[in-house]
Amino acid sequence: MPVYFDNAATTKPCEAALAAADRVSRECYGNPSSLHSVGLAAEREIKAAADTISRLLRVHEYSLVFTSGGTEANNAAILSAAKAVRNRRGRLITTKAEHPSVAEAHKALEQRGFDVIYLNLSENGAVDADELSNAVNDDTLLVSIAHVNSETGVIQPIGDLVKIVKDKNPAALFHCDAVQSFGKLDINDFVRESGVDTAAFSSHKIHGLKGTGCLYVRRGEAFTPLIMGGGQQRRMRSGTEDTAGIVAFAAAAEEAFSKMQSNDKKVAEIKNIIINGISDIGLGIEINGGVISPYILNFSIPSVKSEVLLHALDAAGICVSAGTACSRKAKSSPTITAYGLPKWRAEGALRLSFSAANTAGEARFFLEKIGEILPRLAKTGGKFK
Amino acid sequence: MPVYFDNAATTKPCEAALAAADRVSRECYGNPSSLHSVGLAAEREIKAAADTISRLLRVHEYSLVFTSGGTEANNAAILSAAKAVRNRRGRLITTKAEHPSVAEAHKALEQRGFDVIYLNLSENGAVDADELSNAVNDDTLLVSIAHVNSETGVIQPIGDLVKIVKDKNPAALFHCDAVQSFGKLDINDFVRESGVDTAAFSSHKIHGLKGTGCLYVRRGEAFTPLIMGGGQQRRMRSGTEDTAGIVAFAAAAEEAFSKMQSNDKKVAEIKNIIINGISDIGLGIEINGGVISPYILNFSIPSVKSEVLLHALDAAGICVSAGTACSRKAKSSPTITAYGLPKWRAEGALRLSFSAANTAGEARFFLEKIGEILPRLAKTGGKFK
Repeated sequence: MPVYFDNAATTKPCEAALAAADRVSRECYGNPSSLHSVGLAAEREIKAAADTISRLLRVHEYSLVFTSGGTEANNAAILSAAKAVRNRRGRLITTKAEHPSVAEAHKALEQRGFDVIYLNLSENGAVDADELSNAVNDDTLLVSIAHVNSETGVIQPIGDLVKIVKDKNPAALFHCDAVQSFGKLDINDFVRESGVDTAAFSSHKIHGLKGTGCLYVRRGEAFTPLIMGGGQQRRMRSGTEDTAGIVAFAAAAEEAFSKMQSNDKKVAEIKNIIINGISDIGLGIEINGGVISPYILNFSIPSVKSEVLLHALDAAGICVSAGTACSRKAKSSPTITAYGLPKWRAEGALRLSFSAANTAGEARFFLEKIGEILPRLAKTGGKFK
Repeated sequence: MPVYFDNAATTKPCEAALAAADRVSRECYGNPSSLHSVGLAAEREIKAAADTISRLLRVHEYSLVFTSGGTEANNAAILSAAKAVRNRRGRLITTKAEHPSVAEAHKALEQRGFDVIYLNLSENGAVDADELSNAVNDDTLLVSIAHVNSETGVIQPIGDLVKIVKDKNPAALFHCDAVQSFGKLDINDFVRESGVDTAAFSSHKIHGLKGTGCLYVRRGEAFTPLIMGGGQQRRMRSGTEDTAGIVAFAAAAEEAFSKMQSNDKKVAEIKNIIINGISDIGLGIEINGGVISPYILNFSIPSVKSEVLLHALDAAGICVSAGTACSRKAKSSPTITAYGLPKWRAEGALRLSFSAANTAGEARFFLEKIGEILPRLAKTGGKFK
């Protein structure tokens, strides 16, 4: 088995999630909307899963909408805010370093005539409070900022940013892509305390299954669905619910939240071994981002293209990422570019992302291999331009 | 285990689908967009699944887009046609008896200013060729008609209807909701021969898993995605692909297509036993719909409300449906109402839907139980109004 340091792209499903999915698929296969006993059994499973996740997030179960993943959840929140107005009038504010599912939704709205502001980020990846405050005007419909950046792991102080927005315009909504923090950072009270209006979560980033996510929508907020039909989920998201995926999501979330502190300690230890090791290597390696999640480590190496290094590490049995999996074709990291860092930092950015299943031995194996690869690459075609 | 006659709502997953999903979740958990070996292994699984389904449908693999289900596939096709024009100008044509995922998408577009025509249906559920032809004008963007109606099982001659549309306006697109025919009717060459531009399919209706569907989009046709982000699936549907669900879909489809003829024979036999049995009961039972899929039987009983009968049958261990699961709260069948049949037919419509896992013994058990229940309901509160 390769060393898997790409847990921000996706994680290996945990046994609890796999067992839940298999049980539900076999025993509770009914359509949750069917009125007979087989359907009602499936409906109960979904209710129990919603209960679990709402308990973990300390929100009302009716504020949760299950989606096909984080991408749909981000799209749905952003597009709903835009659908709330006629004539495509209004401002949306986001940053230059959001996940493609947030960035592309804004680009589409911009093409439809909305006024979209893309905030700059500091070299450390921070949002400037004044720039945000100045951007919020009376026409502002929505501000979308991720809790943890998927490439660099930079953490935004969402509660502070929400306050800045609401101080300027209490009617402006705040959406938070919380895909990389859910079940990882201690966000027990994050949703309630930060004051976000909507937030997106994903199951397969926390050892659940692909194809399931969740959108938090503050109760009482108007919401226009992205997917329409039979009116499932209180008319907020139509389509037969993926009972097995949803129950697996709850099982994975329960496990992630219950082990949050020990998981945090484990990944922080692994990350520290690697940070210390790459510092020892020298070569002018720079870590990207300031305040960072312990689950992600992003660094750049001068004169080594990240994709070349990725493939060399893959050949040595180590899976890492250059940028996000969701922007496969990008030649340089959009996030590092948005931080205003030199070109070599964006072209040489390597992302390692951890899970509690990783070990200190794997970290040392990585250091050993990168120690062999880097001098070899420096001699051969590893240089770019 | 109850007798499950609600296979048009959802089916029990087959072993091939369950085994495929479990294998992929455990062994190929990588993100299909990741560039390392674990990601590439997942990408190969998706390619193989697309190969399988495209071979079964005899279409190019690049014409298939995996979705979160039939609802998303229907929504995506209809909304894409509307997004192709500016200023919300243009006509969309559909029937008065489409699935909610088609009907609601049209209602939303109507509210946004599009001209939507809802075609009438005959008492047998047929579309009138002249009415369709007259409805198609130069502004027509899309015609959406289901292959098999989900409530009554009425089959539309899609190839003939496409011809009528294209004769009047070759630029008008034709979308077919093929969720209830895929893997059931012999539609090997359906997609190609009918000439449809887009068609929607679902996995959980053919013993696959919930949460996966597929949209066929004729190659070369413009398509505007419903879900935007990382540009997965040739930029037609973003979001990390649900590898396990997709591979399970291919496994279920392979099994459904390989057993199509024997399955057809089995369900037809079960359906015939029930048709003959309910005729013997008398009571003025009327079968709804003319040319019907062997998988669905919809009939109405005078002076018995379908929901009351549904619950009485459920208590006797038999799962059936009143209308579709996706229109749970409807007090009378929208489809039967659209057929212009008397009110009692719409309020008393019961849907039985079969799979090859059903048996002749179950059909006789149903007849025995309904024979006990109906006289009892007739005496008590079973009458409506």
